[in-house]
Amino acid sequence: MAEVGIIMGSKSDLPIMQEAADILKELGVEYEMNIVSAHRTPELMFDYAKNAHKRGIKVIVAGAGGAAHLPGMTASLTPLPVIGVPVKSSNSIDGWDSILSILQMPNGIPVATVALNAAKNAGILAAKIIGASRPELLERLSAYMEELKEKVMESAKDL
Amino acid sequence: MAEVGIIMGSKSDLPIMQEAADILKELGVEYEMNIVSAHRTPELMFDYAKNAHKRGIKVIVAGAGGAAHLPGMTASLTPLPVIGVPVKSSNSIDGWDSILSILQMPNGIPVATVALNAAKNAGILAAKIIGASRPELLERLSAYMEELKEKVMESAKDL
Amino acid sequence: MAEVGIIMGSKSDLPIMQEAADILKELGVEYEMNIVSAHRTPELMFDYAKNAHKRGIKVIVAGAGGAAHLPGMTASLTPLPVIGVPVKSSNSIDGWDSILSILQMPNGIPVATVALNAAKNAGILAAKIIGASRPELLERLSAYMEELKEKVMESAKDL
Amino acid sequence: MAEVGIIMGSKSDLPIMQEAADILKELGVEYEMNIVSAHRTPELMFDYAKNAHKRGIKVIVAGAGGAAHLPGMTASLTPLPVIGVPVKSSNSIDGWDSILSILQMPNGIPVATVALNAAKNAGILAAKIIGASRPELLERLSAYMEELKEKVMESAKDL
Amino acid sequence: MAEVGIIMGSKSDLPIMQEAADILKELGVEYEMNIVSAHRTPELMFDYAKNAHKRGIKVIVAGAGGAAHLPGMTASLTPLPVIGVPVKSSNSIDGWDSILSILQMPNGIPVATVALNAAKNAGILAAKIIGASRPELLERLSAYMEELKEKVMESAKDL
Amino acid sequence: MAEVGIIMGSKSDLPIMQEAADILKELGVEYEMNIVSAHRTPELMFDYAKNAHKRGIKVIVAGAGGAAHLPGMTASLTPLPVIGVPVKSSNSIDGWDSILSILQMPNGIPVATVALNAAKNAGILAAKIIGASRPELLERLSAYMEELKEKVMESAKDL
Amino acid sequence: MAEVGIIMGSKSDLPIMQEAADILKELGVEYEMNIVSAHRTPELMFDYAKNAHKRGIKVIVAGAGGAAHLPGMTASLTPLPVIGVPVKSSNSIDGWDSILSILQMPNGIPVATVALNAAKNAGILAAKIIGASRPELLERLSAYMEELKEKVMESAKDL
Amino acid sequence: MAEVGIIMGSKSDLPIMQEAADILKELGVEYEMNIVSAHRTPELMFDYAKNAHKRGIKVIVAGAGGAAHLPGMTASLTPLPVIGVPVKSSNSIDGWDSILSILQMPNGIPVATVALNAAKNAGILAAKIIGASRPELLERLSAYMEELKEKVMESAKDL
Repeated sequence: MAEVGIIMGSKSDLPIMQEAADILKELGVEYEMNIVSAHRTPELMFDYAKNAHKRGIKVIVAGAGGAAHLPGMTASLTPLPVIGVPVKSSNSIDGWDSILSILQMPNGIPVATVALNAAKNAGILAAKIIGASRPELLERLSAYMEELKEKVMESAKDL
Repeated sequence: MAEVGIIMGSKSDLPIMQEAADILKELGVEYEMNIVSAHRTPELMFDYAKNAHKRGIKVIVAGAGGAAHLPGMTASLTPLPVIGVPVKSSNSIDGWDSILSILQMPNGIPVATVALNAAKNAGILAAKIIGASRPELLERLSAYMEELKEKVMESAKDL
Repeated sequence: MAEVGIIMGSKSDLPIMQEAADILKELGVEYEMNIVSAHRTPELMFDYAKNAHKRGIKVIVAGAGGAAHLPGMTASLTPLPVIGVPVKSSNSIDGWDSILSILQMPNGIPVATVALNAAKNAGILAAKIIGASRPELLERLSAYMEELKEKVMESAKDL
Repeated sequence: MAEVGIIMGSKSDLPIMQEAADILKELGVEYEMNIVSAHRTPELMFDYAKNAHKRGIKVIVAGAGGAAHLPGMTASLTPLPVIGVPVKSSNSIDGWDSILSILQMPNGIPVATVALNAAKNAGILAAKIIGASRPELLERLSAYMEELKEKVMESAKDL
Repeated sequence: MAEVGIIMGSKSDLPIMQEAADILKELGVEYEMNIVSAHRTPELMFDYAKNAHKRGIKVIVAGAGGAAHLPGMTASLTPLPVIGVPVKSSNSIDGWDSILSILQMPNGIPVATVALNAAKNAGILAAKIIGASRPELLERLSAYMEELKEKVMESAKDL
Repeated sequence: MAEVGIIMGSKSDLPIMQEAADILKELGVEYEMNIVSAHRTPELMFDYAKNAHKRGIKVIVAGAGGAAHLPGMTASLTPLPVIGVPVKSSNSIDGWDSILSILQMPNGIPVATVALNAAKNAGILAAKIIGASRPELLERLSAYMEELKEKVMESAKDL
Repeated sequence: MAEVGIIMGSKSDLPIMQEAADILKELGVEYEMNIVSAHRTPELMFDYAKNAHKRGIKVIVAGAGGAAHLPGMTASLTPLPVIGVPVKSSNSIDGWDSILSILQMPNGIPVATVALNAAKNAGILAAKIIGASRPELLERLSAYMEELKEKVMESAKDL
Repeated sequence: MAEVGIIMGSKSDLPIMQEAADILKELGVEYEMNIVSAHRTPELMFDYAKNAHKRGIKVIVAGAGGAAHLPGMTASLTPLPVIGVPVKSSNSIDGWDSILSILQMPNGIPVATVALNAAKNAGILAAKIIGASRPELLERLSAYMEELKEKVMESAKDL
């Protein structure tokens, strides 16, 4: 049963958002992935956000570009933690629009924002959140960070 | 019966948004004013936006600050034209966040954005939209623009 | 007889501005399209803006790049609602110049600004404005929004 | 035993960061609060970050201004989720420096960034993260969101 | 007879624009000063710009804030050099809007832009332009620069 | 004998700056063109700036990228009007660095700044400055503006 | 004999630049302080920059605001390392102008830029540069960093 | 024995950072080059920074992109002067993130920041710092600046 729900505003966000799915798979966390647009399918978004925690979802990862309302609107409709991924879409203004639309949420309704296009980090963050109550996942995350370290040290050898 | 629906995300936006009401009154256009928060009262926003045109509302003016989702979300739920007022709130980043969150809407769901804090202009724009099918309002708007002109020319006399 | 007047500052804006014309055609709203430069043909702009409403135009859509003065100057000369499309031209500074030149109009002279390069949304907004007094157009707009929804839901199926 | 560790780079960040503590108290989540500077006490930061999860801490909330390295460095040393609060300090450039220093983390080391000065939201997010595995806390969060809703609707009555 | 025409969009720009007048007086260059608004008195602006050179004006200094169209529109209607002063007005976005609206003019219609609020520099630049064909004014400008130098060196003595 | 001195900080600026030379040639104004770097040949810049007006130069056009000091430093060393062209060079930050380095000059030392990469406009502005005291050049400029108008109107015919 | 030369473009920069002097005094490094304006006293700047190393100066600290040319021009005239302090002056655009004018130097002529208004850090950096060849100064710097650490840990006790 | 330690956060920074090495070689200054990531190998960074001065390193050049913490964290752990190179990496926001993360260090811990991608200037600055106490290196730097001058003057001949 999926513990992480990955949603995005448009299919054009998939190449970015797939990275969240891939790392979750690598870390052994189950996820589901859907296209849910705040602006084009607002009712669907309402349903999704209101019911996710009832289906066992523990964290929602939401990616969107431009005036990105999906992460914030989802957060306003669920008690679950929501991670927002600002996506740099084609007519975006260098990504500033999606970053600020996701990050600058009002008091009471936080969105855990990650870097521009950083769906991979959103996946890792989702795993960390679930790991907060699951020691063996925390250990897998420690191992993952250890691997990163080794890769850097390996790459340094050729210098 | 109100033709313009003015909504805002928080009561703290009232000093700014009142200017929309004042100019509509001056121009003889009926309006209603409500607090409807995209993030704190999402269901209320849904109801408001889905039903406004059924109650005779012809234009919606929505003001919000920070990650301002109210104008865009309202626009996604109504066939009516929505005018967005970016409000420079206390922890805003110089207003950039509300401007970009309102302006940069995706294809299909436009929001007619006005300048930062420009609720007065939002009111005038609402009147112009209604005036598009009502000649006498158009004339009142022309008269209003004529008055602006005279004020400028009057102020120039003292120079 | 045209109800929407589309104008742009330069022929180089045509690939963007054509999208406004296309969506208006799709929605069954009559339009006309002209090149009118605030800086190179200021008299022509004056004539256009002062007379548009006399010819039956109900909404003006004006697109321009850089120090984009066409939408604001047109708005200063007509009682009609003016929609501004910031165009990201070649020597533009990431589009910030055209956005701010169009958006930040002074009190009294609003321009309904849409997103960078969002001529399609300008066309939809023009239709919404006309639809404010024409129920069957409002219904066509509702149907259009319904289609957007279906496309998103269709695209989600392949995931 | 504290489940949330709140740290900040300087005592001058306390007026902002106190809001994280207050909301956690209100939500019934135990926390501890420390001053740990990435730049002035790097060894202390190392110790804190490497050992927090061993002491039972489940989430770290780190606030800092300017070239804000505390959240990101802490995240690089712990398997726990780290929430970053960009603080707008005196010589900050409108807060852009702290936002970008915290948000734009490289792949592998996410920081859950909240809005500028939004320590309250950081506290709520920390509670949501812990709530992901604790149903009664999730319910308290739902109740909290319900209260926000009621306050908005109450404030709307006076309009 | 005035050689420099100083215009501004609103009387609220006068405290800034007065500095252009003061330095021109100090340098012995005759000027006139008017309020001419691109948006509120567009016909007046047309008349002013089209006729200035016929009245003996040699340089126009135009100041405006926000979506500042006065300098650029004036430049489009006169063969004279136009100096633009971006004024940081109340709802301006840190002055960026007026700077970009004045600076980023299209090919063919230059505006000589000076720093934010730098009406004094606009006055000096106007004098330099007139001095380009009047040796004794050039000498007065050299003397003025010499005075600046002396003031700096004087101020350094107290250190 | 050259009346306009065109200088640039590096040969890599030539493709942009050549446009100033071309339009001056078209308008029948004599010019000279040199490479003078504020940072690499400061003494040469000093000599150039201090002596230009003695050789009959009436206007200096200076182009530079990045931390663009050439226009401002030249202006500090000559009584002549200096036109600054911000050049968008390879490691420039979207041109913001050269724009701000040229535009934001202190009181006393103005630089007439034109748009990013707008060397053509710098050339036209130089001609306007010289034309301020030469009626037949002013007429040529009026004719040039007339041609621009006709080109726009011609291009509009194909629409 | 002074080893660090502190210069600034205007006496109004003194309250900021004094902090460089104070910390150098505290660290036991001799300095001199002068007002040298790139734009108002260019010849003085030339003399200062060309001769500083001959008088035994080892590092130059230069502070300036707006279109800040003093650090870069000084660097172009001396083989010594130059530290640039961007000063946020009154008409500055949030400090962006001075930061970019100082930071974005072309290849060959580096300026060691510190944070906005960070004259204290410029003083410490100057001491570090001199300390690079003077072990006892390096030790004093280590002691100074130790004190910072202790102050932070002391301030944490009251929490 | 190396006097300059060049470090970078990732092997992808090597094409940029190699330029620091090349110019140091050209100037006859010995260097070493390593990959040390603040986020992926924090312990390695600690060791490197704490011990560099013990191995005879006199200056550290640190390059990083995005939320660039390597230069600032290194500076917090060494008494040596640290030069920071903001690298414009792939998901960077036009380089603003790395610039502000490196530049805006708090009081007490300066980083000598150079322009975006300006590793060559970082190398020259490192040589200038070492040259502060080594006359023959200062002379080589003067000769290098002389060569730059000659290249500019040579390039000007073809104009």
